[in-house]
Amino acid sequence: MSGKVFEILRFEKLDSTMDKAFELAKSGCGEWTVVVAEEQSMGRGRRGRKWVSPRGGLWFSIVLKPKFNPIFLPLVGIATSLSCAEAIEEKFGLKTKVKWPNDVYIDSSKVGGVLVEALYRSGKVEFAIVGVGLNTNVHPQVKGLDAKATSLSRLLGREIDNEELLEYILDKLREYYLMIPDQRENIIRRYLKHMMFKDEIVKISINGRWIYGKLLGIDDLGRIVIRDEEGYVKHLNVGEVERVRRS
Amino acid sequence: MSGKVFEILRFEKLDSTMDKAFELAKSGCGEWTVVVAEEQSMGRGRRGRKWVSPRGGLWFSIVLKPKFNPIFLPLVGIATSLSCAEAIEEKFGLKTKVKWPNDVYIDSSKVGGVLVEALYRSGKVEFAIVGVGLNTNVHPQVKGLDAKATSLSRLLGREIDNEELLEYILDKLREYYLMIPDQRENIIRRYLKHMMFKDEIVKISINGRWIYGKLLGIDDLGRIVIRDEEGYVKHLNVGEVERVRRS
Repeated sequence: MSGKVFEILRFEKLDSTMDKAFELAKSGCGEWTVVVAEEQSMGRGRRGRKWVSPRGGLWFSIVLKPKFNPIFLPLVGIATSLSCAEAIEEKFGLKTKVKWPNDVYIDSSKVGGVLVEALYRSGKVEFAIVGVGLNTNVHPQVKGLDAKATSLSRLLGREIDNEELLEYILDKLREYYLMIPDQRENIIRRYLKHMMFKDEIVKISINGRWIYGKLLGIDDLGRIVIRDEEGYVKHLNVGEVERVRRS
Repeated sequence: MSGKVFEILRFEKLDSTMDKAFELAKSGCGEWTVVVAEEQSMGRGRRGRKWVSPRGGLWFSIVLKPKFNPIFLPLVGIATSLSCAEAIEEKFGLKTKVKWPNDVYIDSSKVGGVLVEALYRSGKVEFAIVGVGLNTNVHPQVKGLDAKATSLSRLLGREIDNEELLEYILDKLREYYLMIPDQRENIIRRYLKHMMFKDEIVKISINGRWIYGKLLGIDDLGRIVIRDEEGYVKHLNVGEVERVRRS
């Protein structure tokens, strides 16, 4: 293979790396264009929530142009959160978990999250943007940061090299991404090793109501799979998962 | 039910009703906002092709916010082209066909097409834009119009009331749209009645190569279903369909 795969564009400050990447994709930038911002003023999380993104953290979005069937799109988020979790574990020796679909945890504290947006056009994905936010060198007391959040520098007691971590994640993600068309079982198997609450009783909120069941894993389409109290196996594509503490 | 369902916004001239609707959807407009342009300077067809849109035609885009599983999104295009075909047949007594996925034909001439774009965000469709272009009062010799295209006014020898036709289509589409979550077989059955080349031998171009087979219909996800020469049944989600003339 010749030439570089990743085109990394760095910005001091952006509203959101998602919006910048979306804009670049619309004007025809190449696949694996990566937008990195030192700081985001309007970083987004899932479900329209704000993502606090001060200097020090690793905030980036990647432009992808998946040729595979759009039904596999959720696996892009699955592959990305897995890449982040594995990268942190391998580079820093910290045990990581992935909370379905795309949050990265260390113990019970969130260190990062992944967001996937895509433009669908008549049966095909025109492009997808994967956004990653990792609390690397974020000060834990930073205003607005979720009380349950933590950062790598806080846990390790030292500064993280964002650039090095970014490249490590990108290399990993690229490998998994190429597996989506026909080696999904590989991604799923590795994701399950990191999956939070696996084999535990969880509840999942869907449009305001809760579904209870034992968390069995994820399926071939990136959906969460639970066995409910009546023994039915359910595959869900959205929802917030929480552990149920039985009294 | 109270209040009107459709919010119809009319413009003299737009680059594309798709872009305007997309912009409105991004800034939070309501579902069933409909953008109509007298004329489009950069109307789009499928696969990035230009759609010639001079004055006289019916060019519009609809903002939808589907709550159903994103895998059913192709059925929005299926439902829309079906609505156009049925509306033309019922209002004007012209026999119509739908060429999979979303083109509307009368005999072997194209009178319209449908395009679906959507913004996907972490497992959900944030919004979908359905674009419709119908050659109602377009002069058949209009510069740039495909030689195989025709118009309703040409076939009927009279002027078409665009506003009336638009409302007829919207009412129909709304009915079908509400069937997508759990009455898809209803949409499919009606679509099959209008489906071009059904039960004939066709070829479908996919990434430059052709797949041959007998066209059996469409499935629950809006994919075209063919039985290939070796007897295998294949479900395809993109491609251009052509009839094969056996010599």
